[in-house]
Amino acid sequence: MRDLLSAPPSIVAAGVDVFSDALRAQGADVHDVDWRPPGFGDPADLAALALDARRAAANRTAVERVMAAGSRLVDVRPAREVLDLPDRILLHAGPPIAWADASGPLRGALIGASLFEGWAATVEEAEQLLASGGIALDPCHHHRAVGPMAGVTSPSMWVWCLEDPVSGGRAFCNLNEGLGKVLRMGAYSEEVLTRLAWMRDVLGPVLAEAVRSMTDDPWDVKAALAQMLQMGDEGHNRNRAGSLMTLRELSPAIVEVDAPAKDVAAVLRFIGGNEHFFLNLGMPTAKLAMDSARAVPGSTMVTVMSRNGTEFGIQTAGTGDRWFTGPANTPVGLFLGDYGPEDANPDIGDSAIMETYGVGGFTMAAAPAIVRFVGGTVPDALATTERMYQLTLAENPAMQVPILGFRGAPTGIDVLAVARTGWLPQINTGMAGRVAGTGQVGAGLVQPPQQCFAQALAALAEESRTAA
Amino acid sequence: MRDLLSAPPSIVAAGVDVFSDALRAQGADVHDVDWRPPGFGDPADLAALALDARRAAANRTAVERVMAAGSRLVDVRPAREVLDLPDRILLHAGPPIAWADASGPLRGALIGASLFEGWAATVEEAEQLLASGGIALDPCHHHRAVGPMAGVTSPSMWVWCLEDPVSGGRAFCNLNEGLGKVLRMGAYSEEVLTRLAWMRDVLGPVLAEAVRSMTDDPWDVKAALAQMLQMGDEGHNRNRAGSLMTLRELSPAIVEVDAPAKDVAAVLRFIGGNEHFFLNLGMPTAKLAMDSARAVPGSTMVTVMSRNGTEFGIQTAGTGDRWFTGPANTPVGLFLGDYGPEDANPDIGDSAIMETYGVGGFTMAAAPAIVRFVGGTVPDALATTERMYQLTLAENPAMQVPILGFRGAPTGIDVLAVARTGWLPQINTGMAGRVAGTGQVGAGLVQPPQQCFAQALAALAEESRTAA
Repeated sequence: MRDLLSAPPSIVAAGVDVFSDALRAQGADVHDVDWRPPGFGDPADLAALALDARRAAANRTAVERVMAAGSRLVDVRPAREVLDLPDRILLHAGPPIAWADASGPLRGALIGASLFEGWAATVEEAEQLLASGGIALDPCHHHRAVGPMAGVTSPSMWVWCLEDPVSGGRAFCNLNEGLGKVLRMGAYSEEVLTRLAWMRDVLGPVLAEAVRSMTDDPWDVKAALAQMLQMGDEGHNRNRAGSLMTLRELSPAIVEVDAPAKDVAAVLRFIGGNEHFFLNLGMPTAKLAMDSARAVPGSTMVTVMSRNGTEFGIQTAGTGDRWFTGPANTPVGLFLGDYGPEDANPDIGDSAIMETYGVGGFTMAAAPAIVRFVGGTVPDALATTERMYQLTLAENPAMQVPILGFRGAPTGIDVLAVARTGWLPQINTGMAGRVAGTGQVGAGLVQPPQQCFAQALAALAEESRTAA
Repeated sequence: MRDLLSAPPSIVAAGVDVFSDALRAQGADVHDVDWRPPGFGDPADLAALALDARRAAANRTAVERVMAAGSRLVDVRPAREVLDLPDRILLHAGPPIAWADASGPLRGALIGASLFEGWAATVEEAEQLLASGGIALDPCHHHRAVGPMAGVTSPSMWVWCLEDPVSGGRAFCNLNEGLGKVLRMGAYSEEVLTRLAWMRDVLGPVLAEAVRSMTDDPWDVKAALAQMLQMGDEGHNRNRAGSLMTLRELSPAIVEVDAPAKDVAAVLRFIGGNEHFFLNLGMPTAKLAMDSARAVPGSTMVTVMSRNGTEFGIQTAGTGDRWFTGPANTPVGLFLGDYGPEDANPDIGDSAIMETYGVGGFTMAAAPAIVRFVGGTVPDALATTERMYQLTLAENPAMQVPILGFRGAPTGIDVLAVARTGWLPQINTGMAGRVAGTGQVGAGLVQPPQQCFAQALAALAEESRTAA
């Protein structure tokens, strides 16, 4: 015992560096062990899935459908015409939620949309109507649609209509309003409503006529997303190249639309002035791909990751339309102006469909400049993409990351891999103000709650045992 | 002696790997020495420059002027109105050259321009006129202009007019025709001449009216170049983001031009269909910056690198307008269609002004996807940029390379550093067909001949001794 205390210590350290760093600073000889916390999940569930004879083939089927899916821009239509909407309904991002449980930005967007539709004349009226159930709420995902941030889509809003030429499936998304004080971030001021009215009366009709004139040779939006990864975009929080490509693809048709030159110029300025304009085309592109793998029994692949500002929800190929939810985390990142962490709402938006598809946070390595928008360092961005390969089923040859020697994006999140590693998918995201009416406060990084994956794992294991 | 031959050999290898690789393959124990050839230059010249008390301050002045220079798009005008051109003159890329010494693509472009101007009715007539000296030839650089590849600029061609708000200087460049069969690559077929006529009659006037409508708030082209480096362009052989930004900046003004909708749509399609459209805006931006350091006695910084297809020429800040030339090398790279190395002309074009400014080949690390166009691997692209820091005077904070942690581009080539290291600047470039009329055959990488730098070194040393 005396020897133990008098001799120089031999130290083996595992886990956080702070211990070994402190010891090393005192001249001790420390051997670090590369250790990380174990994964999660009931061992019986993990075993059931590991031994499920269907799994390998089912996952291959699922991820191959995802990678094979295409995306063509075929139309622009009012939501009411294509989303199968009853009279008074508002679609929103994430899993189902009631007004009582909605966070500030979702409430703000629902209020704004109610005013925009003319269902209420004042904010108070709108709140009462929404609180009393006078307006139905339903997830975008239940209508083959997706919406960034609050994702609120009302019947009069125009939506992009995209089609997968492989499956023939369609997916929809509203038009991007830009940054700052916008409905999807929970703002509903006069400025927001005026812009929405212009989008309804000018932008939508001009885009619709332009896109319809291109139906002989519709724009291949998937190819544009692939090209973005060669141009420093990751496709979720950086859409600069994609938005410019949108302008390039649509502008010749736009100028031939029968509309006043000042409207045409305003449309071009609006598109050119919004570096996120493409996001609402990228999201339905990812949605088309993920929907093509919506029902593959035995597959443990994630088909949806989405947040309503209160809860994070996922779906898997093996469990179809069932949601697995947990409380949404709050992103960590960089803030606009004087906003700070206390202003940020928990994670919100259907835009995590990008990571579900294998881009966004999963291809941060393709977009090193994004760290100036979401925080972190360039090596972090590279390491994030490298880490996501451990959670995914395949590398998508269509979505290449140049800096990694043109390696395909990590694609098809495997619930089993998430459980085994304990690592969670990395999502790049915008941050909405916690208080309704605020708008955007920043952008950052966030992960789903482990709980979603734990529930999905249990359900997949249960299904596996039932099927066996 | 017997011991020497019977014992296992101990080998130290320096220089090319082929020797040590071969020995290692035979099981020998080889120690590699990281050795490279020494630099060049008369030791007395190197010493004269190293000891020149003016040098440090002069180089700082020169490179700071380069980095401070801005670039605004202020006009689009016919060349004859702004380049101070006599009646029958053709400007060309590179140092001065006579018809007799011109390579195929330069001859092709001169023939095409003579036909385009109506100075000759047939190819034969044009050749006779050019061979007889009936048309003057002069470098673009002698007229504050630059031109990619053959760089042939004739009086009727429209040129971008850019202004440096710091020095008030102006620089000019013709409009980019696209890839393939184009005048600047030496093609002069009907297709080429028809396109040039459309550019003269439609594109030029539309751009001129659009750009003039923007004079209250002229486009900051330098900022666009900086943004390109964040978007996977390197600014010489990859201008995808830049070309899209050009469309974004100009399209709203273009649609308000008083021209038929079909012409406006054609202009937008032409810009949108040419991924190199921005190059002719990037080049005069670099030219403005380099011209601002044109006469700084005692500075060993390169202000021009340029090629006429036969010779490579450089100028330095310390030697003003004097050219130092050597035979142009032939690029190595990737070829279009069935073309191969034997089809490539030696290096041609003023576009090496981009590398002179510190982008292009110098910022390949920002554009890993370019290796699919010019050859090589992604690690090569990263290593090239790293190597160029050894040849340059400064890191340009305005031109950041995200993947290198936003390090500034290596800027201001120092003749003395080139001589000391023996390394030469790396240039990304297009490859024109060796035979007049061919057009583009590929794209690749090339270096200047050492001779240019050796001559410049001697002249700078001579000037240094004279000044001392």
